[in-house]
Amino acid sequence: MAVGPFSRDELDEIYAFAVDLGRKAGKMLMERVDQRISGANGSSYAFEEKENAVDIVTQTDEDVEVFIRSALEARYPSHKFLGEEAYAKGQSRDYLIDEQPTWCIDPLDGTVNYTHIFPMFCVSIGFIVQHKPVIGVIYAPFTDQLWSSCSGRGAWLNETRRLPLIHNPTPPMPANAPSQCIFSCEWGKDRRDIPDGNMHRKIESFVNMAAEVGSRNGRGGMVHGVRSLGSATLDLAYVAMGSFDIWWEGGCWEWDIAAGAAILLEAGGLMTTANPPENVDTAPIEDVRLGSRLYLAIRPAGPSATESGRETQERTVREVWRRVRNLEYSRPGA
Amino acid sequence: MAVGPFSRDELDEIYAFAVDLGRKAGKMLMERVDQRISGANGSSYAFEEKENAVDIVTQTDEDVEVFIRSALEARYPSHKFLGEEAYAKGQSRDYLIDEQPTWCIDPLDGTVNYTHIFPMFCVSIGFIVQHKPVIGVIYAPFTDQLWSSCSGRGAWLNETRRLPLIHNPTPPMPANAPSQCIFSCEWGKDRRDIPDGNMHRKIESFVNMAAEVGSRNGRGGMVHGVRSLGSATLDLAYVAMGSFDIWWEGGCWEWDIAAGAAILLEAGGLMTTANPPENVDTAPIEDVRLGSRLYLAIRPAGPSATESGRETQERTVREVWRRVRNLEYSRPGA
Repeated sequence: MAVGPFSRDELDEIYAFAVDLGRKAGKMLMERVDQRISGANGSSYAFEEKENAVDIVTQTDEDVEVFIRSALEARYPSHKFLGEEAYAKGQSRDYLIDEQPTWCIDPLDGTVNYTHIFPMFCVSIGFIVQHKPVIGVIYAPFTDQLWSSCSGRGAWLNETRRLPLIHNPTPPMPANAPSQCIFSCEWGKDRRDIPDGNMHRKIESFVNMAAEVGSRNGRGGMVHGVRSLGSATLDLAYVAMGSFDIWWEGGCWEWDIAAGAAILLEAGGLMTTANPPENVDTAPIEDVRLGSRLYLAIRPAGPSATESGRETQERTVREVWRRVRNLEYSRPGA
Repeated sequence: MAVGPFSRDELDEIYAFAVDLGRKAGKMLMERVDQRISGANGSSYAFEEKENAVDIVTQTDEDVEVFIRSALEARYPSHKFLGEEAYAKGQSRDYLIDEQPTWCIDPLDGTVNYTHIFPMFCVSIGFIVQHKPVIGVIYAPFTDQLWSSCSGRGAWLNETRRLPLIHNPTPPMPANAPSQCIFSCEWGKDRRDIPDGNMHRKIESFVNMAAEVGSRNGRGGMVHGVRSLGSATLDLAYVAMGSFDIWWEGGCWEWDIAAGAAILLEAGGLMTTANPPENVDTAPIEDVRLGSRLYLAIRPAGPSATESGRETQERTVREVWRRVRNLEYSRPGA
């Protein structure tokens, strides 16, 4: 199967290169952790503040991005490149991915976790062709877990376990979803205490999803569990695995989710917008736009006795939309 | 250093036995996961409902407890044993740990994660002597991470990395804690939508910890991140590592926290009650009672320029108490 201008063989070669690059970049992240653990690099908790105390960027972030960018530009000089650090320093704030083959990179997702040496940090490498994520590589070096996918080649954990993990057969979404589902969500950086601001809209949504069935004007979802890892990329990796059933989030940028989206979609997951449309019962469920900053992901699902796998996913999307508030995230200039 | 009736040599031998037992029990957990992944064991998402959809117990839970209990009773017939499954089936609901050497076991912590094959599940083995946790072993087999400690021998990740991870030197708690801290908390199983019930008290506390400084009548804590893993045992393991700075929770039982408490205390952490006393500024900060069901854990901390490590921890305890609500959890019969 060819994708855009790439033959199957070309795509497979690019995939192998991306996996190798992800492992090397992850090793760089881990080397810096080991230096901090051994006290080799001066003050162990030193970091630089960005917009507020929640937003940390380390030198590592920049170094690893330069490493990845240099490797990609040397090997594929005709491909475009979009990285978090490059974007942050650039002048344009427009959506930068077009039809051209584009690498979309987060050298370090879960920076707060990284600073605190909580293992949920990773490197994220996505390859986008004609607006579609076709290759995804996520590597979490502390626990040596690698998620990867390439269009037509399946999605994998550590290149040996096919995703979703349970696929003999893949279970449908529960009949009473979101009940019995693990719901993944993040508190994020916007902690402004504004009535009806994003933080309070998020919390209201979380509580609706969590509260017992029948409560909250029928919105109580009684999810099986609520999880917050502090890494959008790893949230998506776990949805692709089938470990999390639902991930709902606003505010991410395309480098946070490009690789995860590639892996989730290749595994059979669904990804659409976080914000409920006017009519949640009938609105079409459209594929997410990478740059939308509003994401709802549903794990891979097989058929039930009465529905296709996709139907069980779409039913779940509508049940989530019934319970969540609209979030307000936009792009500067958009 | 002897502990209670045990010489140093005896304690070291018991420790080695517990580590080996933890690894073996964890392998049992992982074998069952592999069976489910390969579809070998019938319906892959089959489970039995307990009190509500959030409370899953699997056959695995019971089998692993029997395995651990049998091994301990064969080796140490004079020691007492307290396990989650045995307790659940027993008649007495009293607090069962007394002065005698007692093993306190959770064969599977993070059962919801286990059911969904989210890697944050583990076996937890604690050894209590004269009410003090002296040995702790936590093994998370999916990512092959083992935390262990024995009084006087330090606390370790995978028997090679000393806890807390950053100890050259161990940093103090931040001067403006809980700001800059990772706050770990759990939504738990009690989702009753009762005004001023436990769920709403928890959420109010979470929001106080998360909201920007200056908000919420001065309670806004602007923590660096909010994390929820769905395993009290692993929450404590990560506090002992220094990955999480603060863990606050109500409702756990002693088998959920015995091993974690042993590891945390040996690593230099502090553990006290979750519920704020009447005067948070002056109340003594007492060691937690294992059976209290109310827990606040602070990571290991070294001295700052003006405070001892313990002083930075106690300051943080008081800052958390200022921001959280009292939770209502008791023991049946207590």
